[in-house]
Amino acid sequence: MDVSIEALTFDVFGTVVDWRASVAREAEAILAPKGIQRDWGAFASAWRARYQPAMKKVREGERPFVILDALHRENLVDLLNEEGISLSEAEIDALNFAWRRLDPWPDVVAGLTGLKRRYILAPVSNGNIALMVRMARRAGLPWDAILGAEVARAYKPQAEAYDSAARMLGLEPAQCLMVAAHPYDLRAAARRGFKTAYVHRPLEEGPGAEAAWPETGAFDYAVADFLALAEALGA
Amino acid sequence: MDVSIEALTFDVFGTVVDWRASVAREAEAILAPKGIQRDWGAFASAWRARYQPAMKKVREGERPFVILDALHRENLVDLLNEEGISLSEAEIDALNFAWRRLDPWPDVVAGLTGLKRRYILAPVSNGNIALMVRMARRAGLPWDAILGAEVARAYKPQAEAYDSAARMLGLEPAQCLMVAAHPYDLRAAARRGFKTAYVHRPLEEGPGAEAAWPETGAFDYAVADFLALAEALGA
Repeated sequence: MDVSIEALTFDVFGTVVDWRASVAREAEAILAPKGIQRDWGAFASAWRARYQPAMKKVREGERPFVILDALHRENLVDLLNEEGISLSEAEIDALNFAWRRLDPWPDVVAGLTGLKRRYILAPVSNGNIALMVRMARRAGLPWDAILGAEVARAYKPQAEAYDSAARMLGLEPAQCLMVAAHPYDLRAAARRGFKTAYVHRPLEEGPGAEAAWPETGAFDYAVADFLALAEALGA
Repeated sequence: MDVSIEALTFDVFGTVVDWRASVAREAEAILAPKGIQRDWGAFASAWRARYQPAMKKVREGERPFVILDALHRENLVDLLNEEGISLSEAEIDALNFAWRRLDPWPDVVAGLTGLKRRYILAPVSNGNIALMVRMARRAGLPWDAILGAEVARAYKPQAEAYDSAARMLGLEPAQCLMVAAHPYDLRAAARRGFKTAYVHRPLEEGPGAEAAWPETGAFDYAVADFLALAEALGA
């Protein structure tokens, strides 16, 4: 590759953290003591299923930009109504902040710590800054800056989410490597001139729902985890 | 104080880093080998003297928001012209990035490391993200996020620089403590509802130019350095 990589920009939900198991755990911790029983993994997936449709309204200009904390909360209220679960406003807030308490995949902290020695590291997530900061402090994610939807005021895969990240880091897009478990995100980054690294996260959607590896050569790198990424990048 | 402090927001130039000695060192390193001789501290001060007037044009709407890297470069070009110093574009860029290589005051890294255990830490500086990220990586400043002028698209002491910081951290202004060596910055933060901590940096403007301590009670805290701040905050 001609231009050297200076920064790694990361998708977060699914790529850095295991949102499904973590949200399931948090939902159970808050709701089970109230006598509510559910398949908590399915509850997490049902909440997450409302994520893309909610962002779509912002992307398509049907409503002004609002941060993900707000979309998550609206989606939660809808889900609770559908499930016939009644909570106080304070309980809804507490459950909504489950997204601040997501656990990283086991390779993440060691991988990022190694990569940080050589590269600038920043999430380029659809999550907002308050969420990303709390998650990073709890999980030990050594970000150099928090970029993504809130500073871009645009949700991935909109171009501005990637463009703003390169611009704010003072870099050309080709000096940035987008790291994600989701081909749509990587393809959108590549269209803006980023290099791309696919990371395989077979458990993101829960057991039995493993995504296929992308075709060989679809992305600049394709690795099993962040330790393999660090090795591939010589960090 | 009624509401507990959750985040510390920092002025950077002068409060966290010794811009004058560092810029003087960088200017000498780049210009002296070309046979140029100056009082390098005075050169740094002359560059810095163009900082407030340049931002004033943005604050007053005379020109659209541009990042500090761009203002610094324009100011440098003016200064070099005034000094009769001729440099290539690449040399000007290299000298302009002196602002990425500023040394922290001796108490800063230990102080921030202690404070980080208990508080969210973020610069709310007029410096842009690319500058702040390079400075932090070189100096070991453990920021949780980079806030300030670029994400606010407003220069301190404009209200939006403070308002956006609290909002993006998901906090009430009263949960944020602005830390600065400059009373004008603290007063502006206080007007937006922030708590305030004055840090005395007698050497900011060079030897013999020591600022006076503010009146007792002017700010919520007034300390000699970041270690004293950590102690005052019980961190």
